[in-house]
Amino acid sequence: MTRKELIEIIRQRESFLCVGLDTDIEKIPAHLHTYDDPVFEFNRRIIDVTKEFCAAYKLNTAFFESMGAKGWETMKKTFAYIGASHFTIADAKRGDIGNTCDMYAKAFFKEMNVDSITLAPYMGRDSVDPFLKNKNKWSIILGLTSNPSAADFQFQQNANGAELYKTVIQTAASWGNEENTMFVVGATQAEMLKEIRSIVPNHFLLVPGVGAQGGSLEEVVKYGKNKDIGLLVNSSRGIIYASNGEDFEEKARSEAKKMAIEMARFID
Amino acid sequence: MTRKELIEIIRQRESFLCVGLDTDIEKIPAHLHTYDDPVFEFNRRIIDVTKEFCAAYKLNTAFFESMGAKGWETMKKTFAYIGASHFTIADAKRGDIGNTCDMYAKAFFKEMNVDSITLAPYMGRDSVDPFLKNKNKWSIILGLTSNPSAADFQFQQNANGAELYKTVIQTAASWGNEENTMFVVGATQAEMLKEIRSIVPNHFLLVPGVGAQGGSLEEVVKYGKNKDIGLLVNSSRGIIYASNGEDFEEKARSEAKKMAIEMARFID
Repeated sequence: MTRKELIEIIRQRESFLCVGLDTDIEKIPAHLHTYDDPVFEFNRRIIDVTKEFCAAYKLNTAFFESMGAKGWETMKKTFAYIGASHFTIADAKRGDIGNTCDMYAKAFFKEMNVDSITLAPYMGRDSVDPFLKNKNKWSIILGLTSNPSAADFQFQQNANGAELYKTVIQTAASWGNEENTMFVVGATQAEMLKEIRSIVPNHFLLVPGVGAQGGSLEEVVKYGKNKDIGLLVNSSRGIIYASNGEDFEEKARSEAKKMAIEMARFID
Repeated sequence: MTRKELIEIIRQRESFLCVGLDTDIEKIPAHLHTYDDPVFEFNRRIIDVTKEFCAAYKLNTAFFESMGAKGWETMKKTFAYIGASHFTIADAKRGDIGNTCDMYAKAFFKEMNVDSITLAPYMGRDSVDPFLKNKNKWSIILGLTSNPSAADFQFQQNANGAELYKTVIQTAASWGNEENTMFVVGATQAEMLKEIRSIVPNHFLLVPGVGAQGGSLEEVVKYGKNKDIGLLVNSSRGIIYASNGEDFEEKARSEAKKMAIEMARFID
């Protein structure tokens, strides 16, 4: 998907919501367990009731890998079910040397046919370049994460007083461009979006941590929105586990709709 | 596998060689393509001819993921084929927030039943703790990698002049202990092993980059060996692709044997 197409989807749908399908087979409603592939059935139904309210879906690969080869198949089926109407994200946080990353790019961009993959930056440029070679595919690089121990290394200051996450964002922004690179910036650190925007004013940011992890949408928009919106705000548990009863679709729909209505206010 | 068991394997086999099964279906000998699962057939044969010369096998998950669900099955079959006679490593370089890492731990320690997994440290302690809870399983944390762009961030100095990779190793060493934590240290940076040993004198180090990537075994041992050996030195392409003809088993065996003979010199 191109940047232009993504922006169009956001504007038309009046939503920059990304629904996170972190589907844990132990947390889905009991009545789905009679299906051959309960996780796919859950995902399919969540997609059906949320698709009009969101611009993107993010599948966390760990939840599928925990089910082995069958889970990998479920992940592929889910991405295929979403199709081209939404921006798709494999939240895989991969990162390795060049020839290995070519394999990950093949796994996700070709075999799984997703629009984007999240990447860990520790190994530097070699670990991102192989992904950037793929036309209309995106690398979403970890900048500032939403977990408490993000502080362990991401806040380390260099001799000039710049925190590691800023160095990462500034450096990694030069590897690709605004058409193929985004950054993960946790919503729990929303006020830091201001400084991040001074480094990458035009890039899209993927913002997890709104909802279950405590981040505020208002703050994210205040500090993070740019002229093209420039945000994909993810909510996972707050939507998909809004209920674990027979009404889970209705409740998930209602939560997604609520977020989309909030978001529409911020779209001109 | 416990640390004691690992050390016993190394001493008995007089080898701290780890054979890296970065098996690319496009690089294996043509005559194997008639098999149902050519990659498994290749791995099985490589294991058969190298097992007496090595202490560990490392499977690079990217190469299996690039084949989709079938590749995931091949990875599982390969780990099962190796069994308990060798230390097994899923070279997955995962790292995410806590509840996600629980899923990765389930994927690799339970579903795949490996002894260890490689982890990227960018997200800090939360992203490693879930793995450390698993008894007799190991977290192998990226310290200093062997790729050229390791320098992008790993060499960033903090206000006290300490490079990031040292901060990572020092900090992460305190999360677990010598019985459940190792560090990845690239062989191409062998002289830096001296300083790393001053930080973690007793931990095992997984050392990739000997062979195809240009690192020297002599140097790795000189700076990295400790009283318990404390090293697993990986070679992938140098062994598994020593030939891509019908003699690939003989050539792989010969390369592994050569490395084991070199290594035996360093084991008391």
